[in-house]
Amino acid sequence: MIAEKMKGFVAGSSAIRAMFEEGKKMAAQFGAENVYDFSLGNPNVPAPEKVNESILEILRDEPPTFVHGYMNNAGYEDVRDAIASHINAQYGTVYDRDCLIMTVGAAGGMNDVMKTLLNPGDEAVTFTPYFGEYRAYVGNYDGVLVEVPALPGTFQPDTDALEAAVNEKTKVVILNSPNNPTGVVYTAETIRKIAAVLEKKQEETGHEIYIFADEPYRELVYGGVEVPFLPLYYRNTIVGYSFSKSLSLPGERIGYILIPKEIDDYKNVYEAAKCANRILGFVNAPSLMQRVIARCLDEKTDVAYYERNRTTLYEGLTECGFDCVRPDGAFYLWVKSPEADEKAFVAKAKEERILIVPGSSFGCAGYVRIAYCVAYETIKGSLPGFARLAASYGLQ
Amino acid sequence: MIAEKMKGFVAGSSAIRAMFEEGKKMAAQFGAENVYDFSLGNPNVPAPEKVNESILEILRDEPPTFVHGYMNNAGYEDVRDAIASHINAQYGTVYDRDCLIMTVGAAGGMNDVMKTLLNPGDEAVTFTPYFGEYRAYVGNYDGVLVEVPALPGTFQPDTDALEAAVNEKTKVVILNSPNNPTGVVYTAETIRKIAAVLEKKQEETGHEIYIFADEPYRELVYGGVEVPFLPLYYRNTIVGYSFSKSLSLPGERIGYILIPKEIDDYKNVYEAAKCANRILGFVNAPSLMQRVIARCLDEKTDVAYYERNRTTLYEGLTECGFDCVRPDGAFYLWVKSPEADEKAFVAKAKEERILIVPGSSFGCAGYVRIAYCVAYETIKGSLPGFARLAASYGLQ
Repeated sequence: MIAEKMKGFVAGSSAIRAMFEEGKKMAAQFGAENVYDFSLGNPNVPAPEKVNESILEILRDEPPTFVHGYMNNAGYEDVRDAIASHINAQYGTVYDRDCLIMTVGAAGGMNDVMKTLLNPGDEAVTFTPYFGEYRAYVGNYDGVLVEVPALPGTFQPDTDALEAAVNEKTKVVILNSPNNPTGVVYTAETIRKIAAVLEKKQEETGHEIYIFADEPYRELVYGGVEVPFLPLYYRNTIVGYSFSKSLSLPGERIGYILIPKEIDDYKNVYEAAKCANRILGFVNAPSLMQRVIARCLDEKTDVAYYERNRTTLYEGLTECGFDCVRPDGAFYLWVKSPEADEKAFVAKAKEERILIVPGSSFGCAGYVRIAYCVAYETIKGSLPGFARLAASYGLQ
Repeated sequence: MIAEKMKGFVAGSSAIRAMFEEGKKMAAQFGAENVYDFSLGNPNVPAPEKVNESILEILRDEPPTFVHGYMNNAGYEDVRDAIASHINAQYGTVYDRDCLIMTVGAAGGMNDVMKTLLNPGDEAVTFTPYFGEYRAYVGNYDGVLVEVPALPGTFQPDTDALEAAVNEKTKVVILNSPNNPTGVVYTAETIRKIAAVLEKKQEETGHEIYIFADEPYRELVYGGVEVPFLPLYYRNTIVGYSFSKSLSLPGERIGYILIPKEIDDYKNVYEAAKCANRILGFVNAPSLMQRVIARCLDEKTDVAYYERNRTTLYEGLTECGFDCVRPDGAFYLWVKSPEADEKAFVAKAKEERILIVPGSSFGCAGYVRIAYCVAYETIKGSLPGFARLAASYGLQ
């Protein structure tokens, strides 16, 4: 018999992952070129060449007991120095190695922070739609995920609804911009409003409310859109970052959390997050990859590739009559389902060998997510299928 | 304010890790060659050359989106196939990929399994002394770690004490052989007795009791000692493995759990452990390293190096008058403290710039652990200091 709690987690298990496995089976059956798999945020753009070059250099120049060995649970000191300098150059901050913990991707970092902060029953607020795994990352520590709707149409956070939702039990607000699944980038105006609400609520409740900024898509923006850096807007901000998308290394599980010294109870939070990193079984972020990303901080993925995908997909679907949110960042298109039950729409799309994820996986039924981090040919190839789907619903 | 539970974890935080950080500072102060750091199980023997060769081959032959990308949360299918075949060839078993989940080291795998099995209040039994992190790996899921003493002298598990300790609440028994910190290998006779106790208790309680076999040191044995393969002795056995020690890759965080289909409730346990691997934030074991170890399953670390260390250290300390357990495996020497308060002895050793870990970190006061996965010169260099310590206690 497995643990009772795990039964719930397994039952509510990732529809995205199930779809990804399904997609692999369908590709084997119909040929990969005949399946339009938009299920998973698995970047199709290869890692920058500098990644593999760095691996070769490191193996040539650094001793294996150092490269593959244990280091501080927070990560190599020189790697943390390099990341702090990189962030400081971007944002004019003065972080140092003691603000950083290298993590097993963004998911690992977020578990570290939730374990650090949440007592059973503490509330973590987030805006719908949101990455469905947040339910587990909060539930793992018996926290309660409180869903606050985004504004219809723009999918910017509804700050009035936030104000109504925050209470004595609120410990953290999880923000994710550029957003998965909508592709929306939160504006500076939105962030300022959120900060004002939380400052006020901190005073009212007499205790700190942290923002956890989940930012794996920070560099993935189109048309010069700016992503506000949250610690500059709200003092009690902890940032989670991952190189999964920015360097196309999702399988390598490499990221960091940034814990500025300005936050309340910094020392305890930092020490506890480092301890959580150890005792949750990560122990440390993978060593070779730590050393690799320190050499690749100035590298950029091929954003233009995703931008072309975005434009072709957005325009193609809009022309068919689908109601889409135009994404400013990330590589997801958020589309209103042409029937109220979006799972039925997802099933119909599958008949066209198009794999997309129901919005209910993101706490927002009636929509679907299309992950367009795929080959351009997949986008082009899927459009006739989408057109047939649109016609079948009498769109346009 | 951090979570109440984390305060306990931070307060009881790893003495081993604190010592490791202290050792680095002392090395900077006195010169690395003048500090005898026996604190951490960080192998000094470099990874086999085939590891780095495999990395080069993989980067040359396999596409980066595959090598660095997402795969099934359980790991690459071909990697799991290779490991299953390797185990089957060794032990005459018939495992396949669906018995395996690739994990972020042994610590990651053990967290997966504890999260999968433990309801709050469920008991996990282990034998003292034991790797202190078990307290956290069980406590993370509100399980209760029940300590059963090993037999004095041999440090084989006391199976009568086990029988007395197992009850309705017992969900899992954690075994670790070759043992950290004693270096003892559990004999086939001991394992048979443990299996008999648990079979009987399963009947009495009417529910399954799993063994979790934590086996990162399986290949690290001396003088032809055999390590019994636990699933051959007890059906409800789950095995945790890591390449940290066998291939000297502790920083890379790569291991697996083996869940034989013969165990009770196999399907739910396997699915839940795969789900736990995802939602705890591991998502998957690091991708490149998965592909590397599949090519290095027949590689062996330089066991002879550790064996020479063992012999020199064991003989050197025994000659001084220290009371040591002769290790058959792993790379730890377990030594009786010459004064009842072993922390005082550890402090005295530090004055000789010898860093060792108090037994209370392993649930067994009055002893110390010496990790001898160090340069031979460190062993030799430390002996005069140990001799002075022995003399100061009037040993011999």
